[in-house]
Amino acid sequence: MHAAQLAEEFPVVAMDSDALDAARLLAEHRLPGILAIGRDGLPEAVLPAYQVVRFIIPRYVQDDPALAGVLDESMCDKAVKRLRGKKVRDVIPEKYSDVPAARPDDTIIEVAAIMARHRSPIVAVLEGKKLLGVITASRLLEASLPD
Amino acid sequence: MHAAQLAEEFPVVAMDSDALDAARLLAEHRLPGILAIGRDGLPEAVLPAYQVVRFIIPRYVQDDPALAGVLDESMCDKAVKRLRGKKVRDVIPEKYSDVPAARPDDTIIEVAAIMARHRSPIVAVLEGKKLLGVITASRLLEASLPD
Repeated sequence: MHAAQLAEEFPVVAMDSDALDAARLLAEHRLPGILAIGRDGLPEAVLPAYQVVRFIIPRYVQDDPALAGVLDESMCDKAVKRLRGKKVRDVIPEKYSDVPAARPDDTIIEVAAIMARHRSPIVAVLEGKKLLGVITASRLLEASLPD
Repeated sequence: MHAAQLAEEFPVVAMDSDALDAARLLAEHRLPGILAIGRDGLPEAVLPAYQVVRFIIPRYVQDDPALAGVLDESMCDKAVKRLRGKKVRDVIPEKYSDVPAARPDDTIIEVAAIMARHRSPIVAVLEGKKLLGVITASRLLEASLPD
């Protein structure tokens, strides 16, 4: 079994689309992470879901998590509005721009090694400059388990 | 909205069960991670799916990912057998034993801060010593997004 056979279609989000769209896609499809693609259709970043969750946390709470306890309900409900008008590329940290990518003929172990090294829930499968699909950690485990 | 309302039932795996069971649960339910519980029913560790993927990678490939390329197909198919006979607690790295946990009355922002700090796809909701359920990153995003 190779990466090309493991690859599945997966929702992707454009780097220039609204950051709220990325959050909405993750929520609606219950995704473990999302692939952000550039204008050329190539993946530019992988965002694990917990990283997107970080977008809704006010900066001062990220700096001092103890402050989360002093926010009242309405302040929490409003937090997500911080995302409005921001693009995906505005909220992606520098270090997430190294995309975990496999080649079509990579073995299960090669894909697993890429996933583990990037600590990523998904790996993109690229044939040259073409995105064939995405492999999730659960799909990889499914393929590698004995019947 | 508080943690208790966000918590969902979620498959858990016992620390003393077979490591293959954890991999199988993740694969079958397409989970972003899994909660490992001790004999007292309390969560002892959270394993992100990419961490479970790591279990199937031979030690020498973890140390030198370039070696993954030299493994042939049958060696890959056999890799999962390394898990046989091992318990979940045998394959959990030390650093994953700090469980991301929320209290029932924590706000969305507090849960998000816990998730971000632990870089975890799931957070356990504990009422004292009782496990109420689990909050996934996608569930949290769903609850925080505007309609």
